[in-house]
Amino acid sequence: VKAEATVAEAGERALLRRFRERIPAGPGVVVGIGDDAAAVETTPLTLVTTDSLVEGVHFRREWSPPHLLGRKALAVNLSDVAAMGGRARYATVSLALPADLTLGFLDGIYDGLLERASGSGVAIVGGNVAATGGPMVVDVTLLGDAGRSVLRRAGARAGDLVAVTGTLGGAAAGLRLLRDSVRLRAGGGLDWSGPWAHLRADDVERAVRAHLDPAPPVALGAALGGAGLVHAAIDLSDGLSGDLLHVCEESGVTAEVDAEALPIDPAAARIGEDGGLALALDGGEDYQLLLAVPEAGLPALRALAAASKAAVTVIGAFAEGGRGVSLRANGAVRPLRPASHEHFRR
Amino acid sequence: VKAEATVAEAGERALLRRFRERIPAGPGVVVGIGDDAAAVETTPLTLVTTDSLVEGVHFRREWSPPHLLGRKALAVNLSDVAAMGGRARYATVSLALPADLTLGFLDGIYDGLLERASGSGVAIVGGNVAATGGPMVVDVTLLGDAGRSVLRRAGARAGDLVAVTGTLGGAAAGLRLLRDSVRLRAGGGLDWSGPWAHLRADDVERAVRAHLDPAPPVALGAALGGAGLVHAAIDLSDGLSGDLLHVCEESGVTAEVDAEALPIDPAAARIGEDGGLALALDGGEDYQLLLAVPEAGLPALRALAAASKAAVTVIGAFAEGGRGVSLRANGAVRPLRPASHEHFRR
Repeated sequence: VKAEATVAEAGERALLRRFRERIPAGPGVVVGIGDDAAAVETTPLTLVTTDSLVEGVHFRREWSPPHLLGRKALAVNLSDVAAMGGRARYATVSLALPADLTLGFLDGIYDGLLERASGSGVAIVGGNVAATGGPMVVDVTLLGDAGRSVLRRAGARAGDLVAVTGTLGGAAAGLRLLRDSVRLRAGGGLDWSGPWAHLRADDVERAVRAHLDPAPPVALGAALGGAGLVHAAIDLSDGLSGDLLHVCEESGVTAEVDAEALPIDPAAARIGEDGGLALALDGGEDYQLLLAVPEAGLPALRALAAASKAAVTVIGAFAEGGRGVSLRANGAVRPLRPASHEHFRR
Repeated sequence: VKAEATVAEAGERALLRRFRERIPAGPGVVVGIGDDAAAVETTPLTLVTTDSLVEGVHFRREWSPPHLLGRKALAVNLSDVAAMGGRARYATVSLALPADLTLGFLDGIYDGLLERASGSGVAIVGGNVAATGGPMVVDVTLLGDAGRSVLRRAGARAGDLVAVTGTLGGAAAGLRLLRDSVRLRAGGGLDWSGPWAHLRADDVERAVRAHLDPAPPVALGAALGGAGLVHAAIDLSDGLSGDLLHVCEESGVTAEVDAEALPIDPAAARIGEDGGLALALDGGEDYQLLLAVPEAGLPALRALAAASKAAVTVIGAFAEGGRGVSLRANGAVRPLRPASHEHFRR
């Protein structure tokens, strides 16, 4: 069957065969794809998470080289396992496919899924394809081994520092660039003109990649699950303003964030009207970690982060008090309301 | 928020809150819904399967009381775990929801999911809702404890009997009845006129329920995983003709089925032109088990089935030889080609 053929022309059974042949068995996989269920070796405590990408809501076919779409479908789940302090092991992939989708595009999705899986020690153990009369849905469920300590959203204490990994606002800046017709070529490099032509090419590419190909700090997450260094963790998927509020609500504390301390992505800083502050606070999809770390644990956290090539920035502190998060900016403190992305309200 | 409100009016966060409040923690659930991932207690060998229901392909909103849709979304996965000889434990539910879906319908789906979960010892540990511009997708991933022996599709031996549980063709007959405007009321009972008005009401209701609310023999499956009685197993989801071929191909044997031995569903027998034979062979969605059992093990299998209120019928035997399945009917033997349902080719 040729790459230009559609999934409708190939048929369900041919699709399943096509993928099964490509998917290698991995460590711990006793029964892989091709039976009624997979059978995998598990530790006494297993992490489970599920997240999906819906065409037209989370991605557009024309924005994303298909292999990056496959990578992202796994990455958003890797981020959740990292935020629990676990090590990802096994994934299932359930696809709802429009009849006009080409096999070439679908192969690209699997290229990306398999690349991201092998790069993070994950075996794909289950696959399901269904026809749909609507947009494509890529649904991934990920299993992981829990570390010695499971990192919860609850657990932050007054006096703990608020720390984040990586930079913030890059994915949101990348989304804006994509909306303004910036395109990442499948082979790398940008197609790029229009309003942002004055930006640095490497900043633009980094931001677009942050949106299309997020890189959660999976090694750091796994290391933190065994270290007992942090009191709470969450992955930054909705946006700092909303995700930090989750931690505060679950932990029964409040938090203050210093605007000047935020590690704002360079492209976000140039695109955003306010130096990228809103993109960093509310943009979402950073897939970095937000951590509650006691001050005494900070040097060890920095060392662990350096060992897994992640950057850690302290952006504020947790404190006693009612619910809520506040922002210190220009010498004044104001409430920081969650303004995170709401997919159902646009 | 009222039941007539749409998911778009409620918003993503309100939807997640609504479900999280409803979903109880279950045995073995260390961290349930509401964190980045769930953490669940697992045995050394865990079964994993995923299956989805797509609106317009697997179901129609007007055919199915929503709570039966929720029950079926879990049941099709329970069937896979049963066919591996396992015991289902934990499920994640990922929903792609059209903006016009009412909260009342969605609540109904969750009613069914929770009812089916609690009825089968399953805890729902992960939930994801996403907006979609297209049809609804209900995607469930199910984890189970593997039994002492994992039942594979491979393993059938020449001389083993081909046995099936329950009846065949009922779900396919039910689908035809639904297409001909037979409707199951949410509170039970049928709305029913037209071409099939001469059938027995209980036969019609049983067939429609077989399609809308399948009942895989989960207790028997779990019992078989510890018993070492059968050599191979598969769940009958595509249809006997295709599923038996899978077992033959994986096991390197052939099989002959006796048409007169098939436990054809009564409604299928009355609706089908050939006494329901085609519906029983190719209809699909029966969600019963097909087993390869050595003749010496048959009495023990029957006893186990009786203990879990399942019926077992011997319909043929496996034999040496090349691939393929044949059917004995009216004193003649002919090849039985798989004519199972193909969602992408209609």
